[in-house]
Amino acid sequence: MKIISKDYRVNQSKKVNLKKWETNVEPVYNSKEEYKKILEKHVTQLSSLQNVLYASNQYTLLLIFQAMDAAGKDGAIKHVMSGINPQGCEVFSFKHPSATELTHDFLWRTYNCFPERGRIGIFNRSYYEEVLIVRVHPEILKGEGISNLQSGEDEIWKERYHSIVEMEKHLYRNGTRIIKFFLHLSEEEQRKRFLSRIDNPEKNWKFNLADLEERKYWKQYMKAYEACIGATSTKESPWYIVPADDKGNARLIVSQIILDNMKKLKLAFPKADENHEMELRSIREQLTKAE
Amino acid sequence: MKIISKDYRVNQSKKVNLKKWETNVEPVYNSKEEYKKILEKHVTQLSSLQNVLYASNQYTLLLIFQAMDAAGKDGAIKHVMSGINPQGCEVFSFKHPSATELTHDFLWRTYNCFPERGRIGIFNRSYYEEVLIVRVHPEILKGEGISNLQSGEDEIWKERYHSIVEMEKHLYRNGTRIIKFFLHLSEEEQRKRFLSRIDNPEKNWKFNLADLEERKYWKQYMKAYEACIGATSTKESPWYIVPADDKGNARLIVSQIILDNMKKLKLAFPKADENHEMELRSIREQLTKAE
Repeated sequence: MKIISKDYRVNQSKKVNLKKWETNVEPVYNSKEEYKKILEKHVTQLSSLQNVLYASNQYTLLLIFQAMDAAGKDGAIKHVMSGINPQGCEVFSFKHPSATELTHDFLWRTYNCFPERGRIGIFNRSYYEEVLIVRVHPEILKGEGISNLQSGEDEIWKERYHSIVEMEKHLYRNGTRIIKFFLHLSEEEQRKRFLSRIDNPEKNWKFNLADLEERKYWKQYMKAYEACIGATSTKESPWYIVPADDKGNARLIVSQIILDNMKKLKLAFPKADENHEMELRSIREQLTKAE
Repeated sequence: MKIISKDYRVNQSKKVNLKKWETNVEPVYNSKEEYKKILEKHVTQLSSLQNVLYASNQYTLLLIFQAMDAAGKDGAIKHVMSGINPQGCEVFSFKHPSATELTHDFLWRTYNCFPERGRIGIFNRSYYEEVLIVRVHPEILKGEGISNLQSGEDEIWKERYHSIVEMEKHLYRNGTRIIKFFLHLSEEEQRKRFLSRIDNPEKNWKFNLADLEERKYWKQYMKAYEACIGATSTKESPWYIVPADDKGNARLIVSQIILDNMKKLKLAFPKADENHEMELRSIREQLTKAE
């Protein structure tokens, strides 16, 4: 089954109702072997495109992964990106902000992490947490020094969406292509994965009690995601909602979307200009004689 | 003579013609002694307001100084800000960007330098160089990896103004107040100051041949400043054009503008809430007994 990237893309200024987006779809593979084969093909293609991205040094690729706990962010990054030359790729996991970070505007700590030209940056969670977990738990705003500012709380989310959209457009104009993934998991599938994290000693480290606490806010999180994705999916930097109840399927969809977006860039190795070509020929001659 | 801040403020979306802005005005002081007295008064007030800015930890103040060479940026910073507690104040001088900085978008290196909440940040030159020197010498864009991007060169300046305005509005919403100074010097006064830098051994270090090269582009710089100031002076973050042929006068105007803007913030020391007050009283009691 062919994966059509745009089936998962959220169109600009579209109202998002996550109930209408599947968490569970017919898988694009028929067997574990076929899954492995397709994934391997995708990873090989990605690796070769990244090679050209790096050499052409013109665009930056930024992949953002957002999702509820246990939706498979870490796994997707691991399995899809493991074939990539780490010299051209950097992953940032955004956790609790530091005291210094909290004394700046909410985009500050992110800005430093934006990848260099020619690189792929991967954000495991991102500045989007500032309109997701912070929206679900607005008391966090106090720690961000926002309590006394002029805007009311309702205004703050709109303002933050606006700040994010404008920052992303600025980055786009300067060569960064941002692809945003929401790994869409069902509440029931999360329950199963939590149980497996508790039952399986090798997965124990991945579980903590706070995750269970957050699960109680599922509905509020879905609302926050809907508002956020609706407000920040743009032509330049679209959101993709990827059904995530099947991890393997999600990885194939994610990798196909990355591939399709990279192909659109029409990357090419930089060509030597005439002078540089002459220079190369002359050096070639010298090196040959010296043999 | 009273200094009226708004006389120097550029209104939003106003077309700027620098020839109509004086570089030389009647000084606001009558003698060197009076200049010193007014400056001292300003510095004392600034220092005390900064104290409250720091304690209240709610706003950030960012002062941006832009000007032609020898217009008095360093002197204004030195004389106006020297009474300030350096713990709450940081100056950044933006010079040639590093190789790493050049691999990011043009605002990246600035972002890291934005001051913390409660502090005063001073930019001696700034991201505005990206639409000033770079506009006068567009070949610099190549080093910034812009040569192959989709927009034409004419578009780039508009895009950069837009990026700057949106970033500044984002910062405003998050508590940063930006005041932008253009120290407006005449070409003739620059000539005199260059001569004095050459003739005076103690000032020699301030002169280099490149400054003279840049002087040849005076007209282009004025055009770049006019376009830039016109496009980026906003209600939230206005530009002030300060006549700079008289250094002392410029310093008094600059300090008055900073004072007026800080007073508008209605800063106050944070009040202890009831619980904290009770706690303080109880600690007081214990400390008194222990005597």
